[in-house]
Amino acid sequence: MSNDADEEDCSPSQPLLPTALRRSASNTTSQVALVGSNLSPIESLDYEIAENDLFKQDWRRRSKIQIGQYIFMKWTLCFLLGTLVCLIGFTVNLSVENIAGIKFVVTSNMMLYKKYLMAFLVFSVSNFSLTLLSSLITEFISREAAGSGIPEVKAYLNGVDAPGIFSLRTLVVKIVGSVLAVSSSLVIGKAGPMVHVGGCVAALVAQGGSKKYRLTWKWLQYFKNDRDLRDLVTCGSAAGMAVSFRAPVGGLLFAFEEMASWKGAFYKILLACSISIFTSLLLFGLPWLASCQPCPADATEPCPTIGRSGNYKKFQCRPGHYNDLASLIFNTNDDAIKNLFSKNTDSEFHLSSICIFFVTCFFLSIFSYGIAVPAGLFVPVILIGASYGRLVGMLVGSHSNLNHGLFAVLGSASLLGGSMRMTVSLCVIILELTNNLLLLPLVMLVLLVSKTVADAFNGNIYDLIMKLKAFPYLEAHAEPYMRLLTVGDVVTGPLQVFHAIEKVSNIVHVLRTTRHNGFPVIDDSPFSETPMLFGLVLRAHLLTLLKKKAFQPTPVRISDDALEQFTSENFAKQGLGDGDKIEDVDLTEEDMEMFIDLHPFTNTSPYTVVETMSLAKALILFREVGLRHLLVVPKMSNGQPVVGILTRHDFMPEYILAWHPLLVRSRWKRLRIQLPRWVKFF
Amino acid sequence: MSNDADEEDCSPSQPLLPTALRRSASNTTSQVALVGSNLSPIESLDYEIAENDLFKQDWRRRSKIQIGQYIFMKWTLCFLLGTLVCLIGFTVNLSVENIAGIKFVVTSNMMLYKKYLMAFLVFSVSNFSLTLLSSLITEFISREAAGSGIPEVKAYLNGVDAPGIFSLRTLVVKIVGSVLAVSSSLVIGKAGPMVHVGGCVAALVAQGGSKKYRLTWKWLQYFKNDRDLRDLVTCGSAAGMAVSFRAPVGGLLFAFEEMASWKGAFYKILLACSISIFTSLLLFGLPWLASCQPCPADATEPCPTIGRSGNYKKFQCRPGHYNDLASLIFNTNDDAIKNLFSKNTDSEFHLSSICIFFVTCFFLSIFSYGIAVPAGLFVPVILIGASYGRLVGMLVGSHSNLNHGLFAVLGSASLLGGSMRMTVSLCVIILELTNNLLLLPLVMLVLLVSKTVADAFNGNIYDLIMKLKAFPYLEAHAEPYMRLLTVGDVVTGPLQVFHAIEKVSNIVHVLRTTRHNGFPVIDDSPFSETPMLFGLVLRAHLLTLLKKKAFQPTPVRISDDALEQFTSENFAKQGLGDGDKIEDVDLTEEDMEMFIDLHPFTNTSPYTVVETMSLAKALILFREVGLRHLLVVPKMSNGQPVVGILTRHDFMPEYILAWHPLLVRSRWKRLRIQLPRWVKFF
Repeated sequence: MSNDADEEDCSPSQPLLPTALRRSASNTTSQVALVGSNLSPIESLDYEIAENDLFKQDWRRRSKIQIGQYIFMKWTLCFLLGTLVCLIGFTVNLSVENIAGIKFVVTSNMMLYKKYLMAFLVFSVSNFSLTLLSSLITEFISREAAGSGIPEVKAYLNGVDAPGIFSLRTLVVKIVGSVLAVSSSLVIGKAGPMVHVGGCVAALVAQGGSKKYRLTWKWLQYFKNDRDLRDLVTCGSAAGMAVSFRAPVGGLLFAFEEMASWKGAFYKILLACSISIFTSLLLFGLPWLASCQPCPADATEPCPTIGRSGNYKKFQCRPGHYNDLASLIFNTNDDAIKNLFSKNTDSEFHLSSICIFFVTCFFLSIFSYGIAVPAGLFVPVILIGASYGRLVGMLVGSHSNLNHGLFAVLGSASLLGGSMRMTVSLCVIILELTNNLLLLPLVMLVLLVSKTVADAFNGNIYDLIMKLKAFPYLEAHAEPYMRLLTVGDVVTGPLQVFHAIEKVSNIVHVLRTTRHNGFPVIDDSPFSETPMLFGLVLRAHLLTLLKKKAFQPTPVRISDDALEQFTSENFAKQGLGDGDKIEDVDLTEEDMEMFIDLHPFTNTSPYTVVETMSLAKALILFREVGLRHLLVVPKMSNGQPVVGILTRHDFMPEYILAWHPLLVRSRWKRLRIQLPRWVKFF
Repeated sequence: MSNDADEEDCSPSQPLLPTALRRSASNTTSQVALVGSNLSPIESLDYEIAENDLFKQDWRRRSKIQIGQYIFMKWTLCFLLGTLVCLIGFTVNLSVENIAGIKFVVTSNMMLYKKYLMAFLVFSVSNFSLTLLSSLITEFISREAAGSGIPEVKAYLNGVDAPGIFSLRTLVVKIVGSVLAVSSSLVIGKAGPMVHVGGCVAALVAQGGSKKYRLTWKWLQYFKNDRDLRDLVTCGSAAGMAVSFRAPVGGLLFAFEEMASWKGAFYKILLACSISIFTSLLLFGLPWLASCQPCPADATEPCPTIGRSGNYKKFQCRPGHYNDLASLIFNTNDDAIKNLFSKNTDSEFHLSSICIFFVTCFFLSIFSYGIAVPAGLFVPVILIGASYGRLVGMLVGSHSNLNHGLFAVLGSASLLGGSMRMTVSLCVIILELTNNLLLLPLVMLVLLVSKTVADAFNGNIYDLIMKLKAFPYLEAHAEPYMRLLTVGDVVTGPLQVFHAIEKVSNIVHVLRTTRHNGFPVIDDSPFSETPMLFGLVLRAHLLTLLKKKAFQPTPVRISDDALEQFTSENFAKQGLGDGDKIEDVDLTEEDMEMFIDLHPFTNTSPYTVVETMSLAKALILFREVGLRHLLVVPKMSNGQPVVGILTRHDFMPEYILAWHPLLVRSRWKRLRIQLPRWVKFF
């Protein structure tokens, strides 16, 4: 290869944009993302410890007893979390089984007396009502509860805070909506929603209940920061996942909360209802296409099943016969999976039935996921995978002596691996589902192959959904073109800095005119000969200072007595998404002329990078350490001691490529197999 | 609490040592650690990408085909690795079973004819010879092969490179020594050594064989860096662990290598031999204390066992009876574990036998681990735990209706959890061992309790061994007192810097007089008005430049033509632990007067921290990003643009506490339950 080839792309040694021009602009990429089905402003989370004087003082005062208390509380919260999520999961499973069970029993009984039209009406009307109710509460009470919720939780753990995703309202709607939607025979799952429920419970428990409804508990002050909350949300989501695939013992009833404000969102509900009717039509209509099978002589359970939910659905068949397609399609998703996974049922299903079921599930699940109800992806993917596996098993036929049930398990594994890409946890989930350790090597192989093939084409499904929802998710690996750029190439201005002792009116002005959440603090005369970076102060802390009126008439250092009035509690995180606003601060003309000494409230250990640092390396620092702000310092210290601040948005490929359009056409992107253009359009 | 309490400890706002004094000293903590049973100099590894001009140029030239090649090679290597480790594991298991099996069969047959003395002689002499041979090859051929090897692998993955741990010689000795030592009835395991073997195979495969024995392969150039090697070593150790607990199919014979130089280490071998004799005495002698049991009428296998290794050992008993203690103690470790874990054997063992076995195993395993043979910890811990579990089961007696075999499994889990602290992987290992998924919740609970209790007292056993061996292992969490210190408090001098265009004689002088592995490069006139940090250059790269004589008669920038003679291969990692030495470079008087332009070879994106950064935060950056060098820049840019370099050693608690003795008596250490002094001495 010659050097010439490179010059065709872009020459990274040349600056891509004049520095002066760039620094005067600002990062205008939207800080708005689709949360559930709601367009909401989002914030970044702060996992870094703000090491200022106040923190150090508070931290030094903590006794061993208090540290022990903290550890004890964390364990207690985890235990409480597990118990709560387990109880919720149990209730959800029980409710779905009962609601869907009654529906199928009533319908089947009517069909037994050949009241086919009546049966269809009951079936479709009950589905319709359940879907309608689910989409109504989702759309009008908490839009954040729509969809799987896993992308939201994943983005949260990555450091993106979307308002309302962990509120009490969302929790209630997620639980009720999920029960209703799953009971309404839509091809959707309840595993994803349970993960979200786990996260909600964790956030609420850590905040000592809902702040909005005045249910907080003072003892939990240690957990009022993003780091501890992140740990607990991780535990909660894990508990949700664990609960999804096992029905735990115990019971607890959940109660509805007061209804909230009503707005208009007619089309989304219409869509949900149409899909419900369409689903009912398919589920009830398709089994008529299948021919009736005679019951096997050695059936281990009553055949055909009458008056209960079971395997050998009678449907329209005459006594002693069953409808194999109805056993799959006119059934709860859980029972259908159980049937497909079951051993020694190779002759129970016809090739045509499995084909119809596969195609139906595939398209129904695609259409169902988008509607405004809490909807998981695990169950549909398992269902589609299981039927695909059985299909392969049937086509392989006599060339293999493997059981078709085993093919179904491997099919599910392959589709799960191809869509979710989580090899280890999926392995364990499939093992727990099938309770067969001997499958381990085969499942591992299938997951490996499916993940590898899928990785060559695109990211995992949750990453794709997060991209669609515009969450600024930080990837684990830097894109190759980031090595061609320096930090200075993406940092934007105008930079707002504060002096270590700053006039109140200046602070108020800056807070009113910008939406930045962190500001560099500069020390200059009389504290330093030349301007010098002192640290980083957070917007939330400035607002607290303004509210507490920590003002002084002259620009001098704050006295120790004045400092004594502040405790770490004043600066604790205010609960997710509802911090103070500058508009809420009332100040007199006199106040505005006063000064604030920022020294004790400034994080004196912010992470910094030199402006010539490669963007790829800065991203690694940003992600590995879990930062919200990264200060950029100049290489030459002639003027300002700080060049700018990098936030999560400055590392987003969309933003970088918008600044440096030459890179879009370059070959410095992650290696993926390039599909022909028509495939993409399709 | 009052502020006064703090002043009793230490006042961290005051510098603990005058800066000028500190900077003129250097970090004198030893860079020597105990590798296996050998005292060796150790190095840090470099997981950071050195982003210099040469890297960028080489990287830009890589075509998609080459990237695809790299991915393909990595997969192929992983597959090869798995296969090789699996074959080695199979051979080890087969050899141990055969050697130990023959020994026990011969001994048992002699006892059948009441030749007790003869039996003891055969037993003890064979044990003695096997131990002697094992300790001889360990001591004289590769001392790095002694012990478990897991601490070495763990330290390697943490970024510490000890010479010889992954050499072909170590691999062969580890395999042969482990087979001999385990066959000699010592209470040691073969799981740890298999993990080390996996790491060895990975390192050798990635280097294309052993460099020393001229078995390298050119195609593997992409893997000649610390990052890819680390990935492969991780895979290899995982394969080793997987193999340890399952006997895979297939077979491969291993061959001895030529013998290496012989030195004197008489006492270690004497110790190993004494322990072997002591073990033989106990294993053969103790069963005489147990009374003979009548064979159960419903025994599923022949009772007593004659002429083969089995459960119901006849030992000295009369026909129709068996010796329960001999079934445990006069048996291979694997068979003893199988017996202890087996269900429905509650009446097979007496309380006294289990007691004797528990105490014997406990002390024998402690004494056996220290001797100079490859020795694992997993099997002894499982064995002790299983007998402890049975003991508890017997003591609980009729209060529980659980099987004693189940108690044994839980006992093993508790001891494993308490010593190794790896909850998730241990869970999976125990499940794979017992093949019983229903145990999962109980095992999880036991692991959680044992880990939590043990964590309150000390670190896990491998961390303790690493500390004993003086490996500079970086902990995941900073010690609390690190928040009281700034980076400037620990950085030491004198700092050696190079100018971007430097005289050869200066470089040679610095390389000869220091052992630093990275040096800051400073740009000054005519390239910059004030001295400015340009980047970091590595010792290895400087040696390459000296060897290739990239010299120029005058101090100017290097020409592009001159640069063309360098490829990334020149700067590739030379294989573990055998880099070039400055003593090997021959230079004339004329050469010494020339200049080298360091610009294209300097990493222009080193990570930096300001000297006022808290040490705790710097440690997080250092560990999370996986650094070898962290540059400290001054807060005020009046003089030198760089204050010093932090390496792994500067973060070691021993070093920090040596500098700041006031902290030793402070309460700013990790919360652990403090034992009374006499407990520690005991």
